[in-house]
Amino acid sequence: MPVETFKATAHLQKGMVVKARSRNFEVTIDEPKNLGGTDEGMNPVELVLCALGACQAIVARVYARQFDVNLEDFWVETEGNLDTDGFMNKSDVRRGYSDIRYNIHIKTDAPRERVEEFVAFIERTCPVGDTIQNPVNVKLNEIIIEA
Amino acid sequence: MPVETFKATAHLQKGMVVKARSRNFEVTIDEPKNLGGTDEGMNPVELVLCALGACQAIVARVYARQFDVNLEDFWVETEGNLDTDGFMNKSDVRRGYSDIRYNIHIKTDAPRERVEEFVAFIERTCPVGDTIQNPVNVKLNEIIIEA
Repeated sequence: MPVETFKATAHLQKGMVVKARSRNFEVTIDEPKNLGGTDEGMNPVELVLCALGACQAIVARVYARQFDVNLEDFWVETEGNLDTDGFMNKSDVRRGYSDIRYNIHIKTDAPRERVEEFVAFIERTCPVGDTIQNPVNVKLNEIIIEA
Repeated sequence: MPVETFKATAHLQKGMVVKARSRNFEVTIDEPKNLGGTDEGMNPVELVLCALGACQAIVARVYARQFDVNLEDFWVETEGNLDTDGFMNKSDVRRGYSDIRYNIHIKTDAPRERVEEFVAFIERTCPVGDTIQNPVNVKLNEIIIEA
């Protein structure tokens, strides 16, 4: 079974700054000033949009040849709506994104019809897209109170 | 209405390397060698785990005082299972995470019962947790073929 286990840690620093690591890579996360942070990095919900666009771009790279779509350039613009009253605990709205939309920019000489088939394939093959779009079983395993 | 729109772009580089930006911040994303990349950064599904842990840490920071839980230290370990046969288009399994688990580490002198209430609150207030756990309406808006 090719079920892989991916891992990360997120360590709270001063204020809302978080250093998150996966393997030997680190990313600094913070909130902008209007959400109470010190603006040292993108915030977690922006990072989710980055992960989605990056995942689509990687799927594009992997399958472009198979769809006979040359990629002279490829980028994704992503945006999502989130009612911050949820996070502020001021209302019963859902806490996360309700809607995420994206535009795919592609520089290619492949005909539009083939590009559309290719993009439809990217949509249904992107792991982060599936993770966001469909329910995932997210569970607290353990609370460890450190001495 | 405090519905905010968050934005990001993800631009494919050489191979599977992607530069993703939100506001003035950038993160480099790539795949490890065993998944076909050149290992210049974490991959998109690892970034999702970072976003989740960071989001929980920020919620902890914002609400610790309200729950009377002092945070001498706080970090989250996150892991998720993903069947890479999906991304490889070799099987009909879902493309994204099936399960994500996390451990919360907290250094505090608050009693365990209060910590447990605090963590339960974090779980239901974390925007990235909600985004992953529950369905989000993710939609392709437009395909732009660049000249």
